[in-house]
Formats: sequence, structure tokens, C-alpha cells
Amino acid sequence: MTFEFDRDTAVTPRSEEVFGADLGAGWSVGGGINGGYLLAVIGNAVRERLRATGHVDPFSVSAHYLSASVAGPAVVETRVVRTGGRFSTVAATLLQDVDGRPVVRISALATYGDLDAAHDATTDATAAALHLALPMPDLPPREKCVLSSDAPDDIKKMAPLLDRFGTRLDPETARWAIGRPSRKGLIQGWFELADHRPLDPIALLLVVDALPPVTFDLGMPGWAPTLELTAHVRAKPAPGWAAVRHFTRTVAGGMFEEDCEVWDSTGRLVAQSRQLALQPRA
Amino acid sequence: MTFEFDRDTAVTPRSEEVFGADLGAGWSVGGGINGGYLLAVIGNAVRERLRATGHVDPFSVSAHYLSASVAGPAVVETRVVRTGGRFSTVAATLLQDVDGRPVVRISALATYGDLDAAHDATTDATAAALHLALPMPDLPPREKCVLSSDAPDDIKKMAPLLDRFGTRLDPETARWAIGRPSRKGLIQGWFELADHRPLDPIALLLVVDALPPVTFDLGMPGWAPTLELTAHVRAKPAPGWAAVRHFTRTVAGGMFEEDCEVWDSTGRLVAQSRQLALQPRA
Repeated sequence: MTFEFDRDTAVTPRSEEVFGADLGAGWSVGGGINGGYLLAVIGNAVRERLRATGHVDPFSVSAHYLSASVAGPAVVETRVVRTGGRFSTVAATLLQDVDGRPVVRISALATYGDLDAAHDATTDATAAALHLALPMPDLPPREKCVLSSDAPDDIKKMAPLLDRFGTRLDPETARWAIGRPSRKGLIQGWFELADHRPLDPIALLLVVDALPPVTFDLGMPGWAPTLELTAHVRAKPAPGWAAVRHFTRTVAGGMFEEDCEVWDSTGRLVAQSRQLALQPRA
Repeated sequence: MTFEFDRDTAVTPRSEEVFGADLGAGWSVGGGINGGYLLAVIGNAVRERLRATGHVDPFSVSAHYLSASVAGPAVVETRVVRTGGRFSTVAATLLQDVDGRPVVRISALATYGDLDAAHDATTDATAAALHLALPMPDLPPREKCVLSSDAPDDIKKMAPLLDRFGTRLDPETARWAIGRPSRKGLIQGWFELADHRPLDPIALLLVVDALPPVTFDLGMPGWAPTLELTAHVRAKPAPGWAAVRHFTRTVAGGMFEEDCEVWDSTGRLVAQSRQLALQPRA
């Protein structure tokens, strides 16, 4: 069985540097394609490019979003900036043809390594002794959460990606769906892919941008275009549901930062991200 | 009068794309050069490259640190990825010659715009109505803080950059200096440049990496090499002292994230950053 995520994020080598991709319409939202999905496509291309080095896991991926992608063919151009003992860094660019002309959608820098090698007994014991492990939020049980794929049909038509996600939102942070946003700037819940495809480091690049924009909870519906998003993958996720928290603390100058934290089913923090995004127009 | 920061971060165009720089030994710490200072050098080159567009302020700069820079000549190569109405994005690489061969020190992506245009009356009123503005920490008055340039001579010999900074640390978060780290993973205080050079958006790229590594407060002295640092400049700082908070919440896999927040003298959040860094070796 091939999972939807794997099929839609697959890349095909066209040369050592260039990979072809086919952006799936199922991951679109409003006029564009979900930024986390695009990051996973880039993540796969970088992974292929670095396969021979053994540095196949994203540690830090910084993506600057330059124009809105559309469903259909795309290419990811990669350039190895450095390969080292523990880490390798690749510059990657996602492009699409517009009227026969290549247009840059996303420009990214990715530092990859081997997450299994990072977590040896010594480093994890040192970390544990510090008691510094961000605890997961106290979420209600999944059966008391709001299933995002239960959204009204007109919303789902606008956001087909809701059917890809098994997101279950904490009802306290989903009151914007009934016109009563908390205005705290917080959205959290449980996450899995709808077809139960297990999460892995590449899928975490999707998860960090999978919840609705936190501006929904500020009473600002509408698309919040990402200027830049950087994701850190901190560990390989254990199988099962992830817990995801999205929040902002400063809206200013027509922009807000959106922080995302992801824990695996064992309660371990596995990814963090921060994006700078444009406030939706009123 | 020329301030030290301006002299040492100045870039000289060698072509439309390439800028020369001279990395000042005064900004070194341990075996390397301070990452925030290097970010400011890159920031100046990007600013020069984009001058004609009017996009002269950094909004988001993502830097992947690939090898340790040394004092002396360097070049910053710039490539304009996109120029748009509100924002322009540049890929920039800082290189140094090693035995006649160019070695990449830092690979960066920078999205610039015009901070004055971002803060118009409408966007700021909308933001203010949301009451979402991260408040500055409750710091002791400066005269009760610890002056980092009062560090012992052997420390200052190892870290000449302490003399560039007028950092005044909250004593509660500086107990590591007397061998009693709080182990909370928090270091905060007041910041200005020692020669009172006013802060501006480029200088904020330095400020986000100007405090000692937060691992000092975890009882881990030693250099904590940055893998990646992304800085968001959110507003132009007002003149006067800045408040700076540095913290980590997850040490795992031999790595930690270090978040930094900077407020200007009016209490406005002006910059945020997050870096992924390597835990110092025990």
C-alpha cells in the first residue's frame, strides 16, 4: 500500500541536482498549497540528494516562501553547500513553470544529519539530568475533540487538505469555528494523517504547518501567507498520535510569528517551528 | 565619529554581487567569531545589494553556520532570489580563504522589506486591539545588574567581545559566573553596545546572539556551536537600552534550541530569534 503523503511528496531524480515533483491538489487550501506539504517535498529532495552521506534526517530546514505554489509539476533544484562529519547542508529551490518561465516558489536551506546517531545513551542521559524537556499540553481525550474533517462542505471545498488530516482540535481552542474565537492566539490538538501513515522526520515538516492559522483564534479568518518558516526536527517520532500546539505572542506591523511544537505519542518533543506570516487582510 | 560596530561590519562592493568584509578580532569568543556579529556583516551586504529596491530592513534572516570564522578578510556573495512589491529575498554566503581555497562559513537566506511601511496606523491599531504584544521581563534596575565586561581577565582574554558589549545581566540568571548555575536555562539582562552606538535593525542581528550561551546557566560552560539561527526583526528599535531574554526549553540529542527576545527602551518587542545549537562537550 502506498500512502497518499508518500505518493504526493515523491521526487524523481532528473540529474544529480534536480528532482521532479508533482504537487497534489489534495493539499491545497484557499488559493495555494499548504506550506508544510511543500516543505516535505523539498525535504524529500534534500534527503535523496544526501543519501550517500548517511545524513538523511532534517535537523533544521529554513524556507522563505516567495510566491504561491499551485497543483501540478514542480522541480526542486539542490546544491550541496557542505558535507561534514555530523551534518550536511543543502540549498534547495522549489520552482514551477509559469508561461514557460521558471518561477521560484520557495528558497530553502536545509541541514541534515542522522537522528539515530544524535540520540546516544550519553547525550540523552545528560539531557534527562537537566529536566529540560518541554512537556506536552494537557489535551482533552480525542473523542472530546473537534474533528477538522467535520468542517462544513463549503470550508472543505476551499480547503481539500482537511481530508488529508485526522486533526482533532481541543474544543477550547476551536471556538473560532462557531464564531467565538478565544483571541488568545492558541490552537492545539491531536494530529495524524487521515490514512494513518506513520509520522517520520519528513512528515514532521508537514505537521508543523498542519493546523489552521493561529490568526483564526484571533478573529481573523482568511489566508495568512507565510514569509518564512524554520523547522527543527529534534527526534524521530514514535508511532501513534502526535500532540501539536500552535501559538503567537506578538502581532505587529501587519505580521505575526507562529510557533509550533510537536510531541510524539510518548510525550517526547520531536519538532519545533517558527514562522513569520502576514496578518490576513480584514 | 565612527562606531566600532559600523567600522567592523562595513562591506565594500567588489562587484554587483560580491562584497568584501574584514572580520574584527574584537568580536571573537573562544576559537571563533560571534555568530550575531557575522549575521550583521551579512545583513549589511544584503542591505547594500537591495538598496535600490527600498527593501533595506531585515524581516527574516536564516543562517546555517557551516564552519568557524576567523578574524580577517572575508567576502559575502549575494544572489537576488526575488524582488517583489513588499519584500525581496537574497541568498548570501560568507566565505573565507583557507590556504588559497574559498571555504563557506555561513549560508543564509534573507527576506528584507521596509519596517517603516510595515508599521502604519492601521496595522498597529489592529495589533494593539488584540492585546498580543509579548511583555518585557521584569528586570532589576541596571545598577543592580552584573556587568559582563567586569568578568575576570582570563575570561576576557578568551572572549574579547565582552568589551564590545555593555551587557548588564540580571544577577538571578548570572549565578553560573560564581559556579552556581540556576539550571533553569535562562539568561536575561539589559544590552547596549559599549560605545553607545544606537541600535537599529542591522544591530539587532547582533543583539539576538550577544548574551552568553544559555547552557552556561545549565552548568555547561564552553562553546555551544550554532547550527542554525533565524532572526526576525519586528520593528525599528527606539534609542536607549534594550532588554534581552535568552532561554531554552529542550535539551535533547546533544542539541538545544535557544530562543531570544529583544525589547527596545519603550518596551516594544523588536526582535525574536531561535537557534539550534550543539550542547558543549562535558
